Amino acid sequence: MASSTPARARMARYLPILDWSRSYTRETLTSDIVAAVIVTIMLIPQSLAYALLAGLPAEVGLYASIAPLVIYTVFGTSRALAVGPVAVASLMTAAAAGQLAAQGTPEYYTAAILLAFLSGLMLTAMGLLRLGFLANFLSHPVISGFITASGLIIAASQLRHILGIEAHGHNLVQILATLWAHLDQVNWPTVALGVSATAFLFWVRGNLKPLLNRIGITGTLAGVLSRTGPVLAVVATTLATWGLALDDAGVATVGTVPQGLPGLVFPSTDFGLWGQVAMPALLISIVGYVETISVAKTLAAKRRQRVDPDQELIGLGTANVGSALSGGFPVTGGFSRSVVNFDAGAQTPAAGAFTAVGIALATMFLTPLLFFLPKATLAATIIVAVLSLVDFGTLKHAWSYSKVDFSAVAATILVTLGIGVEAGISAGVVLSLALFLYKTSRPHVAEVGRVPGTQHFRNIRRHSVETHPAVVTLRIDESLYFANASYLQDYVYDRVVGDEAVRHVVLMCSAVNEIDMSALESLEEINTRLDGMGIKLHLSEVKGPVMDRLKRSHFLDELTGDVFLSQHDAAEALTPGDRPDAA
Amino acid sequence: MASSTPARARMARYLPILDWSRSYTRETLTSDIVAAVIVTIMLIPQSLAYALLAGLPAEVGLYASIAPLVIYTVFGTSRALAVGPVAVASLMTAAAAGQLAAQGTPEYYTAAILLAFLSGLMLTAMGLLRLGFLANFLSHPVISGFITASGLIIAASQLRHILGIEAHGHNLVQILATLWAHLDQVNWPTVALGVSATAFLFWVRGNLKPLLNRIGITGTLAGVLSRTGPVLAVVATTLATWGLALDDAGVATVGTVPQGLPGLVFPSTDFGLWGQVAMPALLISIVGYVETISVAKTLAAKRRQRVDPDQELIGLGTANVGSALSGGFPVTGGFSRSVVNFDAGAQTPAAGAFTAVGIALATMFLTPLLFFLPKATLAATIIVAVLSLVDFGTLKHAWSYSKVDFSAVAATILVTLGIGVEAGISAGVVLSLALFLYKTSRPHVAEVGRVPGTQHFRNIRRHSVETHPAVVTLRIDESLYFANASYLQDYVYDRVVGDEAVRHVVLMCSAVNEIDMSALESLEEINTRLDGMGIKLHLSEVKGPVMDRLKRSHFLDELTGDVFLSQHDAAEALTPGDRPDAA
Repeated sequence: MASSTPARARMARYLPILDWSRSYTRETLTSDIVAAVIVTIMLIPQSLAYALLAGLPAEVGLYASIAPLVIYTVFGTSRALAVGPVAVASLMTAAAAGQLAAQGTPEYYTAAILLAFLSGLMLTAMGLLRLGFLANFLSHPVISGFITASGLIIAASQLRHILGIEAHGHNLVQILATLWAHLDQVNWPTVALGVSATAFLFWVRGNLKPLLNRIGITGTLAGVLSRTGPVLAVVATTLATWGLALDDAGVATVGTVPQGLPGLVFPSTDFGLWGQVAMPALLISIVGYVETISVAKTLAAKRRQRVDPDQELIGLGTANVGSALSGGFPVTGGFSRSVVNFDAGAQTPAAGAFTAVGIALATMFLTPLLFFLPKATLAATIIVAVLSLVDFGTLKHAWSYSKVDFSAVAATILVTLGIGVEAGISAGVVLSLALFLYKTSRPHVAEVGRVPGTQHFRNIRRHSVETHPAVVTLRIDESLYFANASYLQDYVYDRVVGDEAVRHVVLMCSAVNEIDMSALESLEEINTRLDGMGIKLHLSEVKGPVMDRLKRSHFLDELTGDVFLSQHDAAEALTPGDRPDAA
Repeated sequence: MASSTPARARMARYLPILDWSRSYTRETLTSDIVAAVIVTIMLIPQSLAYALLAGLPAEVGLYASIAPLVIYTVFGTSRALAVGPVAVASLMTAAAAGQLAAQGTPEYYTAAILLAFLSGLMLTAMGLLRLGFLANFLSHPVISGFITASGLIIAASQLRHILGIEAHGHNLVQILATLWAHLDQVNWPTVALGVSATAFLFWVRGNLKPLLNRIGITGTLAGVLSRTGPVLAVVATTLATWGLALDDAGVATVGTVPQGLPGLVFPSTDFGLWGQVAMPALLISIVGYVETISVAKTLAAKRRQRVDPDQELIGLGTANVGSALSGGFPVTGGFSRSVVNFDAGAQTPAAGAFTAVGIALATMFLTPLLFFLPKATLAATIIVAVLSLVDFGTLKHAWSYSKVDFSAVAATILVTLGIGVEAGISAGVVLSLALFLYKTSRPHVAEVGRVPGTQHFRNIRRHSVETHPAVVTLRIDESLYFANASYLQDYVYDRVVGDEAVRHVVLMCSAVNEIDMSALESLEEINTRLDGMGIKLHLSEVKGPVMDRLKRSHFLDELTGDVFLSQHDAAEALTPGDRPDAA
């Protein structure tokens, strides 16, 4: 039928699996399975650890690593993205759920599931409405500052598991204060185990791959083996705890983990609760999406593939809905996990589905082995993972490049550390937007003159240029809109009042991309007021779209001067025969 | 002493009265007194009417017209501004206080006083911090739409006094619904009186001045007499009510108004209440300030005087604090009242102090005469005054000029009419900022070529220009910042992918007023990725401030191409010997 092709294309837009599955071959299958095995080995300890970080039972981390991966395979467009529990989203989940209930209660778990569900609905809706561009309003420095601060909070929060003491809080100050208060209750066997695991993992991260290379193991195999550190740590410390009965010595372990796949879970229908988690769910959505899309774009660019930002919203959104319905918590495309997936050779999103199979098998058969797994080991894997996220370099670059960017990053870091994650990310977004608006409300205006021998006009303060006393040419370096309309008015008046020689003011509009109604009214006022002073107002280099709009108003009829195509034309017309280079 | 002059100048900055009082002469005194008499006559019925509109006892309107005027004389910089109760601020006061208590209760009055007090503190603080620029973020179309919608709500709310029935509500829908529900209780004597007064006032507004001119009365005297309409209406309907005992027939009157000056009032120290009125107080502050500053600037421009926007914040702020401390409600610089003051010849802010004396005398001696003043007459003066504020012209202009401005105005009007004043003005501000941000996040990018025979480069789609297949020149019509950084990346890739001839991409930065850190990272990525495709990236016409900043980063070291002073230089360098006009 004639309509089948567009219909198929339309379906493939929302179901990218229809697209890539057509060219699926035996080779692709092999690559995907190899990648899936490697990611599964990496994901098991991570899933357990991030569930711990989110304040949830260990099995919830596994649940969040099954259904979401299968669903992303169907709806996602990135060929290498590995979704699942990640550090920052887990911390944000703990912060949000912790405000509603105490950790360990059924209400807390309900809130975590609802966060995933609502966040999934929001992301899916944004994808269907093609609102992917909203993520652009989170600036790179702000997100980088936020992740750095979150990394510090996460690392600090895990110290309690390393020390075997109680500590709580949603920001660095609270966590360190409560740690300090409980410092007399340190459990030394836990410390010995936790510190060893942390040291081992740090050593693996920096030294294992070079060592493997030196003994002749290179390429993918070396890459795979160098990622087995957390699994080795888990196995070794579990055996040690079992063999030495360290749990009797006060080492906290994961304990009983239910065996088997998760059942279908219906999220809470308490709409009061929906209202309470809506804002945190939105923040988790945005932060999670920004991380996901940036990982997906980076990996796609390496293989010259494309990701569709709006479809990624749908992919991540449905994955979160799936997580909620199978008893999981918010998931995101993780950076290090996706890089491993990519490096291990994953060719299609099917690798994610195979990973899900691996995690499902683990859930069915391996959970009894986790009984003696010390929480300190999981904390060590978290600490080593998140400290790699901490990067104060952005702060340094921002300081030297732009004080505005610096203030946005610094505020994000300080508010996150001092108050908490939700306040921190909100402060970053609001402040960076406010600073942008503030800058545009006080535009740079340069008085310009002609660079001798050219038709080019530059700032009289920076270049040696020709000017004429009767003509003031002002280049406005910003779109004119309500927030800067009155600033321009003041600027023009300040320049011409008292300068009796001025007969013409030319506004050079090469950088004016927009003149809104408020600015148009200001221009009309400037025109009228200059007219009263015997000065004509001209415009030059007005862009096409701006000119189209001016033609729809009365301004051009009232304008005392002319509109010149180029500033050169303006200078020629307003100072005829008076030009040094006119001979 | 040597330090006395700067000290005096510093004091005069915050106490403008020190400045203008030095040149005060007998002639200035006479002009100010004449203006004050006229404004007093106009202000007495207005004060009573706006107190009624705010849901407050009539005398509160008089109180708000004494202390604030004296204080503004000391701190204000406008020579003609007349502060006092105005329509929109009174409506906003009623909306805010009405959410906390029922009209007529002491709690309601307490809330109104606190609104004036907090609003005064906020304005004064903003003035001391020099935050006057914040008012610029309220666009002209939004404020105009808000005033139009407020005018309609006010007119509708006053219909109940004209009809003599009950009606309440904070938006047009509620007011009209409650009016409709009570329509069977109409009091016909009130209707007769109210409709007559309204008709008379409309007639006076349009016809009295021409009539006076025709019978030979012109100039200031005609202006003064044509403003006496409300006073005449007040006198005539009061006498009619007294003589015909219309109060016994159900005509509501002002009743007993306490005689004498207000005492010192201490605003509530219930900080819970402070929290509740903070947001409305902020909105009243901003709307009141925007009205004040625009009236002050307009009148100052006519006489080539200056107003200091930050000092005006202090002037209006202290006036509101004074209003609160003397039992008044929020005040603003009123448009029509200030124009009358100006036309009547007020030379200095002293005219305001003399007006205050007039109102104080009225408070002491005239209040017993107000007993029989019908509320319908006051409602009529309000209706006639506010309907002149209603102007749907802005909506029409916005529709033809800019759909973005149109949506902001339309949203402001609809939300104000449908929900209420606070929601309306907030929606207008938020929407206009969001639309501006949205526009800047999808900048206009034009591919440009040389206008033949010139050094000028314009859009290839709009002008007949010369281009070269190996060189793609993109003029970016927006500052580059986080919200549009990834848009630019996509745009550049989409343009060059598949066009094998391209060897050079030139980004023409004449309209780029800022490159923030996020955009810098995007440029670095574009540079790297184009390099991988064998394409060099160049910049041209980079502005001084932007170039300064780029020099502080590593970008220029990594850039595969060059930075050209002008686009002409770039074209010359990248296509040597290949130019049609090179011979």
